[in-house]
Amino acid sequence: TIDRDRFRETFERYSEIGRTDADGLHRLALSEEDREVRDLFVSDLEDLGLEVRIDRIGNVFGRAEGTDPDAAPVLIGSHLDSQPYGGRFDGQLGVLTALETLRAFDDAGVEHRRPIEIVNWTNEEGSRFKPALMGSGAFTGELDLEEVLEHADADGVTVDEALEAVGYRGDEPAEAREEYHSALELHVEQGPKLEDQDLSVGVVEGVFGMAWLEVVVRGDADHAGPSPMYSRKDALVAAADVVGAVRRLSNRLADDVVTTVGEFEVEPGSINVIPSQVRFTVDVRSYDDAVVGDLVAAVKREVEAACEREGVEYDLEEIWRIPHTEFSPRVAETALAAADDVGASHRAMVSGAGHDASYVNEITDTAMLFVPSVDGKTHNEAEFTEWADAEEGARVYAETVERLANA
Amino acid sequence: TIDRDRFRETFERYSEIGRTDADGLHRLALSEEDREVRDLFVSDLEDLGLEVRIDRIGNVFGRAEGTDPDAAPVLIGSHLDSQPYGGRFDGQLGVLTALETLRAFDDAGVEHRRPIEIVNWTNEEGSRFKPALMGSGAFTGELDLEEVLEHADADGVTVDEALEAVGYRGDEPAEAREEYHSALELHVEQGPKLEDQDLSVGVVEGVFGMAWLEVVVRGDADHAGPSPMYSRKDALVAAADVVGAVRRLSNRLADDVVTTVGEFEVEPGSINVIPSQVRFTVDVRSYDDAVVGDLVAAVKREVEAACEREGVEYDLEEIWRIPHTEFSPRVAETALAAADDVGASHRAMVSGAGHDASYVNEITDTAMLFVPSVDGKTHNEAEFTEWADAEEGARVYAETVERLANA
Ligand SMILES: NC(=O)NCCC(=O)O
Ligand SMILES: NC(=O)NCCC(=O)O
Repeated sequence: TIDRDRFRETFERYSEIGRTDADGLHRLALSEEDREVRDLFVSDLEDLGLEVRIDRIGNVFGRAEGTDPDAAPVLIGSHLDSQPYGGRFDGQLGVLTALETLRAFDDAGVEHRRPIEIVNWTNEEGSRFKPALMGSGAFTGELDLEEVLEHADADGVTVDEALEAVGYRGDEPAEAREEYHSALELHVEQGPKLEDQDLSVGVVEGVFGMAWLEVVVRGDADHAGPSPMYSRKDALVAAADVVGAVRRLSNRLADDVVTTVGEFEVEPGSINVIPSQVRFTVDVRSYDDAVVGDLVAAVKREVEAACEREGVEYDLEEIWRIPHTEFSPRVAETALAAADDVGASHRAMVSGAGHDASYVNEITDTAMLFVPSVDGKTHNEAEFTEWADAEEGARVYAETVERLANA
Repeated sequence: TIDRDRFRETFERYSEIGRTDADGLHRLALSEEDREVRDLFVSDLEDLGLEVRIDRIGNVFGRAEGTDPDAAPVLIGSHLDSQPYGGRFDGQLGVLTALETLRAFDDAGVEHRRPIEIVNWTNEEGSRFKPALMGSGAFTGELDLEEVLEHADADGVTVDEALEAVGYRGDEPAEAREEYHSALELHVEQGPKLEDQDLSVGVVEGVFGMAWLEVVVRGDADHAGPSPMYSRKDALVAAADVVGAVRRLSNRLADDVVTTVGEFEVEPGSINVIPSQVRFTVDVRSYDDAVVGDLVAAVKREVEAACEREGVEYDLEEIWRIPHTEFSPRVAETALAAADDVGASHRAMVSGAGHDASYVNEITDTAMLFVPSVDGKTHNEAEFTEWADAEEGARVYAETVERLANA
């Protein structure tokens, strides 16, 4: 069983690294803060006697051998990077629940037939470097390693350079060395459903499909005073039209659709100059992959129409698409049974957020556990999960891992 | 008469300072490039034997004495700062036309009864530091000197600190030492009217009134995936609505209205995060001050409505308002007569761009000359004026200044 004090103290200690004034976390992938938290994680793994390895994309693994040297291992963990001015629970709680599980097994001398590997995936968030789920995507072969290593942040620093800079450009190939038996990730829900139904645990059976688009609109800078309205090619007017259209798209096509413009950069950004360029991103999601395809097509039409109206040019690129995930019924059922036996209030559900578990599911039977997010709030410094729920989730998690590791 | 080669060579030499790769000018007020061009200007004034003085807001004056020591002086000049990635003609052409006028008078031994003062006004553009027309506004008492000295740029550097850094925090009080007889400024039109009518010179009889607003919209950051649409407080959706409304306002109230959103900054700016904050500016203009007031009221209503719809908060501040200008009929008629006598094709017109001449008009009889802008393009690296037009403007300018200085 979980050591509640240790679990919480560990969480507080990790939360100090990259903590913001408003008690959030600013720990972008492969930043100085990410290096510091990785160093702490590695030393905690070594203290537990785990064999640590780091692969080419910086994923950090720790392996606890099982009693059967030939058994396929169970993979557990999540990610330690954060959004800009994000919360302390997103990702970190999953890694530390996995760590507490291994510590509790060690304390109690819990036998497990299978090896258990704990992992911290590189760049889950996709904020500094695109796309998201980069470490798990490369590891599972769903993303091209050489290609993502060359992706650059807004300052032109590539993933490869950033790995080198923080000392986590590992020697191990970024790929599975053997077949896994199964995988389990715990995460905060990041939405309102569990809280609305007053439940402590969600067993996640699937994840929305999603697509990311990047659009650059090119108009013509001119003076805000003497330039008649009829002669303008205002990149911001066209891009703002698309923002409204993207919002309205969520009311069409299907009821599980979400659509968001998150990045939006205007040039030259001078008070009396007509904007010449806007670069923005569009994020569309639905559980139905066909709907995601329809949304992408609709966004393209809206961009085309808005730019046509304003007489401006544009480039549009689809930078990421991931189909919806259906997790392993076998692993989900193991988790549901564990939740029943532990006595945790729970439900089965799907996730609107992308998770490393989606890519992991491509190479082994995978499922996830969710714990509630207060007000459904996340990617925000105010992100919060009641500690009682975090502990309840950890109990179900440890129970599920024990069952998987002895299956 | 103007020395065409010298005029053009001087223009080319000044254009090297802060020149961009695309042959534009990036010479923000009180930047290192502004320091360099000011140093060149001062040395050119000294070479002409002028008495140079610098006032507390960094305006640079050079004085050519007249034959009558008691006569009120004529004030000529414009500004040497530029927009970010702006053009070479905006402001600079007016300063160098005034300089060439004084050089030509010196060459030909043109007698002038009145002293002539040439001036380079500080921060006309209002891009790095707000508001625009800062040097002339402080000099004429239309802006509060102590207040504008404390205005900061995006990096928190104040006008006062920037003046000190570039060595142009002068000792002279920022105010007129004596009554002026009149003032004349030449500028590029920055709009399409002269070109459309194939004319070389505009005699400017007035300037639009204008107001600048700054709006900060505050929503709530959350995850683009699991956050249902109904729960969102998306600052970008509200701000984008206002951009569309501001564009449409130009179709209402009066036919000389122009409305622009120029600065627009979105936070946190992460692809999978609902934007929590947008800061943007609105620029509204009309020759009718009552219409400017109606526009400001309409923008406030639109911001209120858009924020109400999205459930987000906002702050709105009017950061600058300047009434429309009616220039001196006496000076304008002198210029029209000079244009007739020189044989330049010309028309009377009003300006949609703000000019230092508007503030100067508060303390002495003032008018302006315009020369055409190719395609009406300005605040853009591609800004251009045909050299034949620049010369025609300079001829009319020198003729007008001579008449004013002997009136
Ligand atoms: N869970 C999470 O925040 N994942 C980042 C990828 C996404 O945008 O869904
Ligand atoms: N002429 C010019 O660009 N002035 C700057 C102030 C304005 O925005 O009109």
